[in-house]
Amino acid sequence: MKIATAPYASVHSATQLAEAVKAVGLPAVLKTRQLGYDGKGQAKIAKGGDAIAAWRSVKNAPAILEGFIDFEREVSVVAARSRDGAVECFEVTENEHRDHILKFSRVPAKVAPALAREARQVATRIAKAFDYVGVLAVEMFVVRKGRQRTVLVNEIAPRVHNSGHWTIDGATVSQFEQHIRAVAGWPLGKPARLGKRVEMVNLIGDEIDDAARWLTVPGASVHIYGKGDARAGRKMGHVTRVWPR
Amino acid sequence: MKIATAPYASVHSATQLAEAVKAVGLPAVLKTRQLGYDGKGQAKIAKGGDAIAAWRSVKNAPAILEGFIDFEREVSVVAARSRDGAVECFEVTENEHRDHILKFSRVPAKVAPALAREARQVATRIAKAFDYVGVLAVEMFVVRKGRQRTVLVNEIAPRVHNSGHWTIDGATVSQFEQHIRAVAGWPLGKPARLGKRVEMVNLIGDEIDDAARWLTVPGASVHIYGKGDARAGRKMGHVTRVWPR
Repeated sequence: MKIATAPYASVHSATQLAEAVKAVGLPAVLKTRQLGYDGKGQAKIAKGGDAIAAWRSVKNAPAILEGFIDFEREVSVVAARSRDGAVECFEVTENEHRDHILKFSRVPAKVAPALAREARQVATRIAKAFDYVGVLAVEMFVVRKGRQRTVLVNEIAPRVHNSGHWTIDGATVSQFEQHIRAVAGWPLGKPARLGKRVEMVNLIGDEIDDAARWLTVPGASVHIYGKGDARAGRKMGHVTRVWPR
Repeated sequence: MKIATAPYASVHSATQLAEAVKAVGLPAVLKTRQLGYDGKGQAKIAKGGDAIAAWRSVKNAPAILEGFIDFEREVSVVAARSRDGAVECFEVTENEHRDHILKFSRVPAKVAPALAREARQVATRIAKAFDYVGVLAVEMFVVRKGRQRTVLVNEIAPRVHNSGHWTIDGATVSQFEQHIRAVAGWPLGKPARLGKRVEMVNLIGDEIDDAARWLTVPGASVHIYGKGDARAGRKMGHVTRVWPR
């Protein structure tokens, strides 16, 4: 199985960037190779846009240029691989970003069973390829390919992941417990969703000031991270809603 | 609504005990008024048995004599009352004791909806009568009364309770969160069960040594209390099993 991604090219210099634009096409996104998150270290280059301005905005750091993907939805798979090589995937999660920051994760994802299976296989293959032990998240775009749908891998996070936070309240085993099981050499849990659906909502910036309103929402669990400064765009907490059946 | 209990009489002396035996009848259980738990501070007096031996065995401590109840099953209701007087009950839980120690708690309890309603009403009334704030558990016997079934209150525990531990993994809000909500003056959660059934199993004494076997049981969450000495009869941890629907 080949693992598909967006078209991309390496960018270490302004000259390479010009070549990359030719190879990948526009619109595209210039992404620094290190320490980027929540849209930080990224610059979009529109069709006919100014590539050099983007290059300056990422401060000439080693980067990749990635072709812009017209995706149908975003999903992720949180997988765990144990020391003995067993892999367990959590259910495919549908993610919705606002301003480049994850805002909602929902299960079940609105994808067909075959596509969900494909997404889990992709995550499993990646975990095995890296001989990885622990929890890892694979973010994917769901794209149309003729009449079919398929996934393109967008990002790998070798750790517990925001899009897996719903498992704390909404699954028979959480991604955190699963990670400990994996690295401690214990058997992995068999994760199953609790409730007919689960939604995680990030509390971003000053939304944390209003967290108490969630206390009256049935099935809502409020998680506050205790970060001091509620800067705009900062993930300050999250709420998980579980709808019992 | 009157709240029914087993017949009982106060016992402060050997003389009072003889009167109590006449009033309550045998078999009966002599229970110290303070610090009893898990069968400690209790002595059964069989029909025709030696009441004085029982009195000595509880070391002449202030006690009550309670008529022995031929119950059908044991249930409990964990209720929470908030500072503004609102009450929320967790689902009626069925409990199974072994050697006077809680071994299993299960939801749903095998009781009819009307009896479950009665049990929740009893717990609610007790919480209100004490102007109680926080989580409280009411243990009850389900007894036959002619063709009907009814509940007799057996014990009140003004705190989170072992029979409510299933709510940590198996409900939309746990009894611990509910207690904090109550005492902090926050709105109470509306508890709902997750999963088609939930079972809590206590790990007692050296059963804790074998706790790892639960790691391979789907839907099982293992809780180890970290107590040093696994004495016989000591509650060392518990396992909650949730059966997703």
